Amino acid sequence: MDTPAALIDTLKMQRNIQRMQQRANALGVHLRPHVKTHKCAEVVAAQVAAGARGITVSTLKEAEYFFDLGIADILYAVAMAPHKLPQALALRRRGCGLTLITDSLAGAQAIMDFGQEQGETFAVMIEIDCDGHRSGVKPQDPLLLDIARLLGASLTGVLTHAGESYGLDTPEALQAIAELERARCVEAAEQIRAAGMPCAQVSVGSTPTALSALNLEGVTELRAGVYAFFDLVMHNIGVCRIDELALSVLTTVIGHQPEKGWIITDAGWMAMSRDRGTQSQKRDFGYGQVCDERGEPIAGLLLSSANQEHGVVQLQGGTVDVAAQFPLGTRLRILPNHACATGTQFGSYHVLLDNGDRQVWERLRGW
Amino acid sequence: MDTPAALIDTLKMQRNIQRMQQRANALGVHLRPHVKTHKCAEVVAAQVAAGARGITVSTLKEAEYFFDLGIADILYAVAMAPHKLPQALALRRRGCGLTLITDSLAGAQAIMDFGQEQGETFAVMIEIDCDGHRSGVKPQDPLLLDIARLLGASLTGVLTHAGESYGLDTPEALQAIAELERARCVEAAEQIRAAGMPCAQVSVGSTPTALSALNLEGVTELRAGVYAFFDLVMHNIGVCRIDELALSVLTTVIGHQPEKGWIITDAGWMAMSRDRGTQSQKRDFGYGQVCDERGEPIAGLLLSSANQEHGVVQLQGGTVDVAAQFPLGTRLRILPNHACATGTQFGSYHVLLDNGDRQVWERLRGW
Repeated sequence: MDTPAALIDTLKMQRNIQRMQQRANALGVHLRPHVKTHKCAEVVAAQVAAGARGITVSTLKEAEYFFDLGIADILYAVAMAPHKLPQALALRRRGCGLTLITDSLAGAQAIMDFGQEQGETFAVMIEIDCDGHRSGVKPQDPLLLDIARLLGASLTGVLTHAGESYGLDTPEALQAIAELERARCVEAAEQIRAAGMPCAQVSVGSTPTALSALNLEGVTELRAGVYAFFDLVMHNIGVCRIDELALSVLTTVIGHQPEKGWIITDAGWMAMSRDRGTQSQKRDFGYGQVCDERGEPIAGLLLSSANQEHGVVQLQGGTVDVAAQFPLGTRLRILPNHACATGTQFGSYHVLLDNGDRQVWERLRGW
Repeated sequence: MDTPAALIDTLKMQRNIQRMQQRANALGVHLRPHVKTHKCAEVVAAQVAAGARGITVSTLKEAEYFFDLGIADILYAVAMAPHKLPQALALRRRGCGLTLITDSLAGAQAIMDFGQEQGETFAVMIEIDCDGHRSGVKPQDPLLLDIARLLGASLTGVLTHAGESYGLDTPEALQAIAELERARCVEAAEQIRAAGMPCAQVSVGSTPTALSALNLEGVTELRAGVYAFFDLVMHNIGVCRIDELALSVLTTVIGHQPEKGWIITDAGWMAMSRDRGTQSQKRDFGYGQVCDERGEPIAGLLLSSANQEHGVVQLQGGTVDVAAQFPLGTRLRILPNHACATGTQFGSYHVLLDNGDRQVWERLRGW
C-alpha cells in the first residue's frame, strides 16, 4: 500500500456506530447521522443497518450522491442559499425527500417564492440558535414566528446544533450544554405550536451533546457526525477513549535529523489537513498522535509539525535514537485531530475488515 | 456559478509568473517551478511559455500527471521512500527524465540497490540542510561525501530549500537567508567537487528567497511554487502586494447575526482549508481577507472563523448593518492565507480570462 493513506478500522467504526445508535434508542429518539465526516457509501450503509433514520448532509452534492445510492430522507443542514434552489428542486422532482433549513425572513421568502413559481412545496425547518455559536434564531425572538408564518405548510420543524460543546471538556459542562440544546429547541417548537402552527420535528445534536444528554424529552431526532470515527479533539472533550479512534493516516519514514530527534515522514499537512483543533484543548497533540503500524499509540510520539508532504515526528519529554528505532521505510499510523478535516484530504479510504481482508471505499469531495 | 468556488485571476497570475521568470533570467539561473501549489496543466503551460525549464513536484502522482501532459524534466523534491521506487522506475522506463532526492545513506543505498537489480541508473540529487528547517545533510557533514560516493554516477547535484524564510518579514532578513541558502548549497557542491566528483546541478529556492536574493553565484536553478498565485502569508512576509493575489474563493452570503455583526457565508474551512498561516505573522487575517465580488478588498472585513461549510465574516474595529449592506445571496471573494492549502480543497479552478471569458481548469489531488 502506498503512503500516505487514510485507514479505517471497521471494528472500531462499527462499535462507535452501535454506541451512538444505542444512545439514541435509549433516549427514545431517531438518529440522523451527519455524513459530512466520512462522505462514504459503506459507512452510511453501516449507520443505516444499525438503525439510522435518514441522513444529514452539509452540501447538496452529498445529497445527490447519497440519494443516487438509495437514501431518500435527507436533511441539508446549512442555511439555504437562494441560488441553490434549482438544485434542491431537481432532487425533489426525482423523489428525494429533501429538507431545507433557514433562519431568516429573506431566506424563507426566497424558498417560498421559488416554490410557488415552480409549483413545489419544499420541506423546511427553522434553525434555532441555542448557544450563540453560529447561525439560527433565538427561541424568544419574534422573528421565529414571523418565519414560521411565512413558511406555512412548508414548515416541518426546528433544529439546532450546540457547536459550543466543542469547547468543553467535563461531563458536567457537557450535560449542561446538552440540556441547553434540548431545552432551547423544544422551547422554539412550543412557541410555534402555541401560535397555532404544527411543528412535528425537533432535531438536535452534536457528537459531544449526543453522548452527554441525560434526557431528550420533546426531541424527535438526534444528529451527530464525527462519532463514526472519533478523533483527538473528541478524546480531549472526553467523549471517547483514544483506542476508539477508527480513522488514521498510514505514513512511511523517509528521513531523520538524528541530533534533533526528528523523524521525517511522508504525511504532512496535505495528508493530515491543517487542522490544529487540539491546540487550544487540555492536551495539544500537534498534528496527530503517532502509532505503530498496527495502530498502537507510541507514548509521547507526536507529529509535531507539518509541511505540505513532510511531517516531523518528535518524542515529547524524552530522547530516542530515531534512525535505529524508526529506520527508513518504517510504517507508522497517525491519529488525527479532526476526522472530518483529515478524511477530506483523501479520495478513498483503505479499510481493514474484521476478517483481516482489505477494501477500498470511495469518498466524495467538493461541491 | 455555484459557491464556494476557487477563482484564478489570470492577469494577476501571468504577471506573477513573468515577475519570477524575469528574476531568474536576471540572476542567470533556470527556473524550475514547484507545481504543488496549483497542480494544474494550464498554469504549468503558462510557466513553461514564460521560460521555465522543467518542473518540481511533491508527489509521484504529480510526476505521472505532468509527464502524461508532455513535461519530461521532473524533479521529485521529497526524500525518496524505498517503496515508491517501482513507481519511479516505471516513469523513467516511459522516458521521463525524473530526478530523485535523498539525504541519507540508507536512502541512497535503497536507490542504488533497486537500480542495480532493475538495470536502471536513477538521477539523484543530495538534499542539503541550509537553515535547520527540515531535511537535508549539512554541507560540512562527512555524511555528504559518503552519500555522494555511494551514488557515484547517479549523482547529478545538490538542492536545498530555506523553509525558515517563511518566518521572516524584512527585506534585510530575507536577503540574508537567501544568501545563506545560496552559500550553503554552493558549499556542498564544492565539497563534492573537491573530493573529485562532479556536481553539475545546484538548485535552491523558495518564493521568499527567490524574490529576495541579490545574487545566485554558483547556483544553476531556482525553485519556487506559491509565487504563481501568492497569498496572505506571502503578503505578510513582504514579497507581494495584496492586489497581486491571483487565487480567491467565491462565496455566497447565507445568513446574518445582526446584533453581533456577523455575516454567515458558504465558505468555511472545507473551502479555505484549516490553514491559519497568518496567525503568527505581523497581521492575522483570520481565515482570509474578504473582497467584493470583483475582488476588491473590503477594509477590515475578515473571515474570522470557519466551520466545515460555514464561514463567519466580521468587520474588525467597526460596526456595519450586515443584513442591509451584505444581503442574503451577496457574492464575496476571499483571499486565502495559503494558496497551496486552499487550492487543494477544490477539484477545479474557475478562471477569469483577460478578455472576460471564463474557463474551468482541472486540478490534480491526492497521491
